[in-house]
Amino acid sequence: MPETPPRPDQSSAARRAGGAPSAGHVGIIGAGQLARMMLGPAIELGLPTPVLATDPAESAAAVAARVQLGRHDDEQSVRALAAEVEVITFDHEHVPAEILRRLEQEGATAVRPGPAALLHAQDKLVMRERLTALGHPCPRWWRIAAAEDLAAALSETDGRIVVKTPRGGYDAHGVRIVERADQADDWLAQHGELLAEELVPFTRELSAQVARRPGGEALTYPVVQSVQKDGVCYEVVAPAPGLDDAAQQQIRALALAIAEDLDVTGMLAVELFETADGEVLVNELAMRPHNTGHWSMDGAVTGQFEQHLRAVADLPLGSAATLAPVSVMVNLLGGAAEDLAPGARAALAADPELKLHLYGKSVRPGRKIGHVTLVGDDADDLLVRAHRAERLIIDGPEATVVPTSPGATR
Amino acid sequence: MPETPPRPDQSSAARRAGGAPSAGHVGIIGAGQLARMMLGPAIELGLPTPVLATDPAESAAAVAARVQLGRHDDEQSVRALAAEVEVITFDHEHVPAEILRRLEQEGATAVRPGPAALLHAQDKLVMRERLTALGHPCPRWWRIAAAEDLAAALSETDGRIVVKTPRGGYDAHGVRIVERADQADDWLAQHGELLAEELVPFTRELSAQVARRPGGEALTYPVVQSVQKDGVCYEVVAPAPGLDDAAQQQIRALALAIAEDLDVTGMLAVELFETADGEVLVNELAMRPHNTGHWSMDGAVTGQFEQHLRAVADLPLGSAATLAPVSVMVNLLGGAAEDLAPGARAALAADPELKLHLYGKSVRPGRKIGHVTLVGDDADDLLVRAHRAERLIIDGPEATVVPTSPGATR
Repeated sequence: MPETPPRPDQSSAARRAGGAPSAGHVGIIGAGQLARMMLGPAIELGLPTPVLATDPAESAAAVAARVQLGRHDDEQSVRALAAEVEVITFDHEHVPAEILRRLEQEGATAVRPGPAALLHAQDKLVMRERLTALGHPCPRWWRIAAAEDLAAALSETDGRIVVKTPRGGYDAHGVRIVERADQADDWLAQHGELLAEELVPFTRELSAQVARRPGGEALTYPVVQSVQKDGVCYEVVAPAPGLDDAAQQQIRALALAIAEDLDVTGMLAVELFETADGEVLVNELAMRPHNTGHWSMDGAVTGQFEQHLRAVADLPLGSAATLAPVSVMVNLLGGAAEDLAPGARAALAADPELKLHLYGKSVRPGRKIGHVTLVGDDADDLLVRAHRAERLIIDGPEATVVPTSPGATR
Repeated sequence: MPETPPRPDQSSAARRAGGAPSAGHVGIIGAGQLARMMLGPAIELGLPTPVLATDPAESAAAVAARVQLGRHDDEQSVRALAAEVEVITFDHEHVPAEILRRLEQEGATAVRPGPAALLHAQDKLVMRERLTALGHPCPRWWRIAAAEDLAAALSETDGRIVVKTPRGGYDAHGVRIVERADQADDWLAQHGELLAEELVPFTRELSAQVARRPGGEALTYPVVQSVQKDGVCYEVVAPAPGLDDAAQQQIRALALAIAEDLDVTGMLAVELFETADGEVLVNELAMRPHNTGHWSMDGAVTGQFEQHLRAVADLPLGSAATLAPVSVMVNLLGGAAEDLAPGARAALAADPELKLHLYGKSVRPGRKIGHVTLVGDDADDLLVRAHRAERLIIDGPEATVVPTSPGATR
């Protein structure tokens, strides 16, 4: 039988009562693609999610029902969003900690993750100090307050060292490899203190994700393998190929321990280096949905965006079980094609199983403008197909020589 | 590494170029739950989808980025939406055909499905006449213009007959079982003509869905079994249990033939009666996403809402393959609990694999206010779990005696 024709609701209170499994509205600070990808699951859960955006054209702002304009580092703007909701959460980690601490102390709005946890994703020196104190595996690292500290650190290595600004970095920004002690003078002048880390001779990068509620209920996702391109996440295979059950369990336990030790709420991503002897070292932490978890939107019972909302809204967590033996994700990084439409059509036509996610962002070289996902049985086949789609979309269909894919299905 | 912090986009033209695989924006007429469930996939595809709503509190209007207020049967309102987009499509079939025919003739906006196709979902007499002429299997039926026609039809049956208003019915509305020729006088006075159909002694109801693009590319979804409750869709198992491959293929071919014969674009649902001898008869047609296809949001590579958008935007269709051997869907029909939150929390806590979809509608008895889905291997186990969730949400956790489920997983 046909569906009921529209009948307007009279009472917004009744609507809200009928609409949400949580009492709380969740405000999202920041309107990038991570906020954007929370909106679909929020609609299905009946969770209202107003977004704080600096511009109405931002990725999430362009598609959100409720947008508040303002900056994430402006206390008044953050407070205006907080006043509308019961919980605030984040698209990125750049909200000043003191604003969040004041909000948390006042107690009218829950901040999830809380500022004390979030600090470890905001400040790399704090993160290294804390993880080291907790005994979690880190690369060798040094606190650098002057060129002499860097000279001393360099003398302990093979002559090259990674220098990072403690705050404000993202993707490849705020990371530099140096060979001489004067090569970070500009950053020292600017930041006062820097983090130096040994250049880890890793064999590959892994990522482990945890979801955790305020009361402590937590679960882990399968550990994945990630490949970076110019410092930007580019390709993910879930679960990480060749990682045996014991290693999977050990790394999941490590990520869970970090989430508990730091009292994280929401999604935590632990980026890891795997070394030739099978050891893992923590690279970075992120306390929000993470690029290495995008596969879960299509490859897990509960995608990371739904899971983050469930965790910060203090709803029961959903299963992180996979829907297929392998999922792959390839990022769409801005390239030659300014209009993605022809390539996207060609990619969808070439592979009916392709899941396409576009962020509504203008194309700039290297910019994250979307991603594609495929699920199936064979990682190599899925990667060939995902990269074929990527090239069609990024280069445009005319520029793309499409290789014959061994296992592409129609 | 952390994600890029927000950077506003300067050019909305560039945003659009970068954002959508289709040139076209898709306007949705009607703002019920079907429109609502199109919004998440539209965000991922980068397809702008303004919604025509009669009230800003309607299910889809409350969560859409762009809402235009106006009635679906008011030509000016429909035209105002059409002027904003390249394609219009529908949440329901109640838009007057003459408005759509004029829009189609003018050619500035594509109407999908087109009015000539849609008429068969709007007028049950037109549908019966056409399907019969095409040779597709229907129950015995009669055109009733006067009580004498009904008397004659009754005399050809076992004394009971189904009478339907040709237009404007939905769910159980506009359907009546009569035993005497004077029992439809009121409807005859009101509608002029009625459809009478034999009371089919069906063993169960099935539903077959087709997706079809303007150029004719089409595919079918697995045939499902549906159970109604007081004339409203209540429970779906996909694929239909015990339906062998030959029957699956035969019914899929029937649905595909109807889509082609009627030149449907978008999703077509063919509701069917299965009789004791394994024959199927067409009950109703719907040309939009359909309640019997909600399982595909969680149980198929391409859910019906994404598929409908791809079809009407003339994008390549996505795979309709299933992600698990069995998917079940149970509707949440308004009951005792006015606040769904406690029951929804209990249901999510009881079953981490549960997929919850709430429509943001106030609770009224029998009203469709959401649905739950589960995917897995065993239909009986999934149904027990889905109905347990339904009872928790609809009755509230205090009122619900939760049976121990054989296969529920934590």
